[in-house]
Amino acid sequence: MIKVGVVGGTGYTGVELLRLLAQHPEVEIEAITSRGEAGTVVSDLFPSLRGHIDLTFSDPAQAPLERCDLVFFATPNGVAMKQAGPLLDAGVRVIDLAADFRIRDVAEWERWYGMKHASPELVAEAVYGLPEINREAIRGARLVANPGCYPTAVQLAALPLVEAGVVDLDHLIADAASGVSGAGRKADVHGLFAEVSDSFKAYAVPGHRHLPEIRQGLSAAAGRSVGLTFVPHLAPMIRGIHATIYARLVAQADVRRIYEERYRGEPFVDLMPEGSHPDTRSVRASNLCRIALHRPQGGDTLVVLSVIDNLVKGAAGQAVQNMNLMLGFGESEGIAQVPVLP
Amino acid sequence: MIKVGVVGGTGYTGVELLRLLAQHPEVEIEAITSRGEAGTVVSDLFPSLRGHIDLTFSDPAQAPLERCDLVFFATPNGVAMKQAGPLLDAGVRVIDLAADFRIRDVAEWERWYGMKHASPELVAEAVYGLPEINREAIRGARLVANPGCYPTAVQLAALPLVEAGVVDLDHLIADAASGVSGAGRKADVHGLFAEVSDSFKAYAVPGHRHLPEIRQGLSAAAGRSVGLTFVPHLAPMIRGIHATIYARLVAQADVRRIYEERYRGEPFVDLMPEGSHPDTRSVRASNLCRIALHRPQGGDTLVVLSVIDNLVKGAAGQAVQNMNLMLGFGESEGIAQVPVLP
Amino acid sequence: MIKVGVVGGTGYTGVELLRLLAQHPEVEIEAITSRGEAGTVVSDLFPSLRGHIDLTFSDPAQAPLERCDLVFFATPNGVAMKQAGPLLDAGVRVIDLAADFRIRDVAEWERWYGMKHASPELVAEAVYGLPEINREAIRGARLVANPGCYPTAVQLAALPLVEAGVVDLDHLIADAASGVSGAGRKADVHGLFAEVSDSFKAYAVPGHRHLPEIRQGLSAAAGRSVGLTFVPHLAPMIRGIHATIYARLVAQADVRRIYEERYRGEPFVDLMPEGSHPDTRSVRASNLCRIALHRPQGGDTLVVLSVIDNLVKGAAGQAVQNMNLMLGFGESEGIAQVPVLP
Amino acid sequence: MIKVGVVGGTGYTGVELLRLLAQHPEVEIEAITSRGEAGTVVSDLFPSLRGHIDLTFSDPAQAPLERCDLVFFATPNGVAMKQAGPLLDAGVRVIDLAADFRIRDVAEWERWYGMKHASPELVAEAVYGLPEINREAIRGARLVANPGCYPTAVQLAALPLVEAGVVDLDHLIADAASGVSGAGRKADVHGLFAEVSDSFKAYAVPGHRHLPEIRQGLSAAAGRSVGLTFVPHLAPMIRGIHATIYARLVAQADVRRIYEERYRGEPFVDLMPEGSHPDTRSVRASNLCRIALHRPQGGDTLVVLSVIDNLVKGAAGQAVQNMNLMLGFGESEGIAQVPVLP
Repeated sequence: MIKVGVVGGTGYTGVELLRLLAQHPEVEIEAITSRGEAGTVVSDLFPSLRGHIDLTFSDPAQAPLERCDLVFFATPNGVAMKQAGPLLDAGVRVIDLAADFRIRDVAEWERWYGMKHASPELVAEAVYGLPEINREAIRGARLVANPGCYPTAVQLAALPLVEAGVVDLDHLIADAASGVSGAGRKADVHGLFAEVSDSFKAYAVPGHRHLPEIRQGLSAAAGRSVGLTFVPHLAPMIRGIHATIYARLVAQADVRRIYEERYRGEPFVDLMPEGSHPDTRSVRASNLCRIALHRPQGGDTLVVLSVIDNLVKGAAGQAVQNMNLMLGFGESEGIAQVPVLP
Repeated sequence: MIKVGVVGGTGYTGVELLRLLAQHPEVEIEAITSRGEAGTVVSDLFPSLRGHIDLTFSDPAQAPLERCDLVFFATPNGVAMKQAGPLLDAGVRVIDLAADFRIRDVAEWERWYGMKHASPELVAEAVYGLPEINREAIRGARLVANPGCYPTAVQLAALPLVEAGVVDLDHLIADAASGVSGAGRKADVHGLFAEVSDSFKAYAVPGHRHLPEIRQGLSAAAGRSVGLTFVPHLAPMIRGIHATIYARLVAQADVRRIYEERYRGEPFVDLMPEGSHPDTRSVRASNLCRIALHRPQGGDTLVVLSVIDNLVKGAAGQAVQNMNLMLGFGESEGIAQVPVLP
Repeated sequence: MIKVGVVGGTGYTGVELLRLLAQHPEVEIEAITSRGEAGTVVSDLFPSLRGHIDLTFSDPAQAPLERCDLVFFATPNGVAMKQAGPLLDAGVRVIDLAADFRIRDVAEWERWYGMKHASPELVAEAVYGLPEINREAIRGARLVANPGCYPTAVQLAALPLVEAGVVDLDHLIADAASGVSGAGRKADVHGLFAEVSDSFKAYAVPGHRHLPEIRQGLSAAAGRSVGLTFVPHLAPMIRGIHATIYARLVAQADVRRIYEERYRGEPFVDLMPEGSHPDTRSVRASNLCRIALHRPQGGDTLVVLSVIDNLVKGAAGQAVQNMNLMLGFGESEGIAQVPVLP
Repeated sequence: MIKVGVVGGTGYTGVELLRLLAQHPEVEIEAITSRGEAGTVVSDLFPSLRGHIDLTFSDPAQAPLERCDLVFFATPNGVAMKQAGPLLDAGVRVIDLAADFRIRDVAEWERWYGMKHASPELVAEAVYGLPEINREAIRGARLVANPGCYPTAVQLAALPLVEAGVVDLDHLIADAASGVSGAGRKADVHGLFAEVSDSFKAYAVPGHRHLPEIRQGLSAAAGRSVGLTFVPHLAPMIRGIHATIYARLVAQADVRRIYEERYRGEPFVDLMPEGSHPDTRSVRASNLCRIALHRPQGGDTLVVLSVIDNLVKGAAGQAVQNMNLMLGFGESEGIAQVPVLP
């Protein structure tokens, strides 16, 4: 059994990671750390884990993380960039579920995240953990930057079009809606049930931190800088991201075939039948991304729909997928659960 | 007191209309009809109306609708086009909350609604009941076609840009999310709580019936045919429509000023301060439309956000606003309620 | 116009009070205070109030509360007991929506609320503001203790039985479920949407602060101490309290008639027809309490169902009702809105 | 691999059963029938099953059910009683997830279910499938009556007290709240999102069909007839049942110890630590029942809290648990998933 550690297991990404790891046949959780909850029995904080996780949160300073084969950071932004280095030096592989290593341009990262980067050299080494793009690089990586939730849904939806170069790359639009768990498990009036239930709104329209991440990925795919308008919305649901991509066709193309070829054999990308409208619940608690293609009224505007569970393919599940690749397990090991519907 | 009648008062639009009319100081409800519920005490079906509405649903064939000054049709599509004529002949004014008189091109209406129009001549007479465009015509109208919910939210958001001619009119995008009450109060598996709760999806991407209605309105405003991609989504909430409009700026323009001037003095359009993200709950149970303007990263793509309560400004409230204009009451009479938040 | 002030207008009780007062024909809001939000425009915090409330939160120390005829405290427990005295001395009437003056036994209050009472002498003077019990006393009161939400729903449901003395007074059971807004608008992980949505739980089973309040009211009605088991639950909804009362019949009684006589003429208590199951939405955003009576299988256990909107009849609406009585307005003035359904 | 069949796989119980069976290592699904959906690809109806279930709904009359080792009926009440007999004769074991074989008193069943029973002789043979009571009998059964959702939650909560004979058996109270999926996937106005969201109500207070089932189980445990008041409520959530049991202590007892001994070694009953308030989400999508014990204010009224997922331990999961017992698999095989939280 491989030993893994989790730094910062008290958020939604953390508890989801624990849910998946507890059911993974090849790994054993060696330690879960939390500064605030050190000493607390994990299943006292998350009763859903009673009988499945028999550990206590340990103090980050005391935890035997160097003994692990791989450590996940499920921490706020800015933690992994300080702690990943020593672990890597000790021969431990690292997957950061936060944003510290996602943006290759350190100056841009610092601008969007409002802090100085502590390990710019690791940014250069880190592999962006979207297996559908970087599968081989991930297999050999020491340090993986697990993608953001919106970036996963949006990139998987737009990549085939961008790579094929058949749409106007200066004016892509990504309109997305997310469940509330995406904001994390933190005491904040804006996340209260009485604030977000029975309501819907856009937010961060002037600029969301996932914008540079998506732009970086799509630009790399295009081989040139792409123009993107990204508008996230908050929907009154726990889990789920729905992305609606608008792209103007500028060349003749068999769009469906482009997607079929691009995603043939991908275990976690499901191209839906023609005319489909995937709902987020169809991927709830699973690692799947479902995609549907539309060309309304036969015009030149393509509409691509894409759904993921933000906590699974958008965070913890993708991290386990990356771990599977890094450690040579079957790619779907431990993350092949059937979605929970209804 | 003015006498009004309601044909088909058993749906969500109907009960909302009854809620508003019950509190309106100038009107008295003479009759509420329902084929299916004739003989049922209204407040037995809708206990929320106990003590406020003391009527029984009457058989449409028996109801004294000709004695009314004005009759609302809160019926499925295809009913008002058959019954409005005789009422108009009897001197009764009519407001249809369904779609029968919204599309001026009868052939196009028949294509989208899948039936033969029974009164094409009334289509020509009907006034489209968006007071922000047609206030004066509504005042003098015998027959008003009350706009659809999406068309209200989208047109109010896009009209100033379209009238000003400062955006690319061939590629407008209207991405919208609606609460579930928009689908009506009918026995349908797809509207079940267990189907739509904790989920989000696009629907009718190939073509929604509100598309020709919006296109007609914007084209009229532009003085030319506009190109529009309209993608509605279903959000797990009871009430509310949120529209996100994407439009490419093609001319220098002080966009905020265009909106300020367009909506100055409008009692039910609220232009929010810069940087705002209106949520649908901020207009819940009220007749307001709130609008916010964004130009992300200073690019050429404008993003306009617009929220309404689909049952009020998107249906029953706008119908009362139209009635107020038609009968010479104060325009806000009976529909000036403060939104219910939380 | 009567001048009123609101101390602490940033919570859900506060915004609901502002919603109601903004529509009240006889009052003018002179000041709204908030320590944390002093200087903030009220409608910036609550956009639902845009166009209806044109005030700025003022510093409590600066606010001209003595100039008001009546001041509401929509503050946390422990504030009104310190500030009510000087206002009363200045001739201002006071309604406290918190718990400071609800429990007549000061020692018991201090035990449940974990603080020393600052004004025990005012406790003796305060009138418990449940109009259905204390209408005449409220009319003459300087200081009213507005009841808690659960106590309102439970007492209105159980009072007729207790007063009539026809049930076992040693073993009453009140099982209740509340919407999440009852916990207030405060940054707390336990109120997050992702914590409470799609879930249901009991809480505070060992003892909830509303237990002594309910017991005090029912004991006063019985003329002896009553035994009560009170179990509150948290339901994933914004507003609403549903109470289910279980009481063992110990005497022959025409239960329905007891309720009919007890509540005849009450403007805000609605005894539903036989066989009814009131839902909380049937009173949403209204000041009503609806009650239904059941005697399952003809046994000796009575089941009484009772619903209110916790923010209206359970807080702000009842406060306005009390204000109306204290100031000689019509009792329903400003709080006769039709419930919002759906 | 064991071959199983599912009759009536289009409801929520059906899709949940398919989710669990698709992940069960020992079984293969031979056929899924549906009268209404015969010919439809299962994953077209339930996209969540894409890639996991590769079957088409077959016509019940054509399906090779006799070739199965075991057949589940996930049908409306009244179907299995007609079709189970021939299957049993063909050597197929049967688990009915509906109510046909739950009530031993056929006359009482006919009264509550409003139809004539087609196979009274099978009622006598059927084993009531609550493993915590009937484990050994289930192992040897040909025909298992899978318990109802409320009866599972309520019986597991109350059994230890009833068996121990330490509470007043004439006046038990079971107050319960259920998610909406309990009402099934059928076109019905009362299950619409806009009807049940943001609301809470009791229903069927005069008498719910699960009452005789619970009474039968508790009476058997007590060795005498018990008196029970059962009040179900509808909560705005998809899944979950929460039961709150009120029982009057009539003898000295170490209640916690009674539960500990009763449920020691039970794989799916989790006795929570003292002071706990289990929430339904802590068992979401899992086969667990969590129970907590309270004695408020040290009085003589015990309060027992119990939560299950109505579609798993309350239906499909318990059916798989029964199958595991009947076919000699590990009891937890295929149903040991970690609950999905949040």
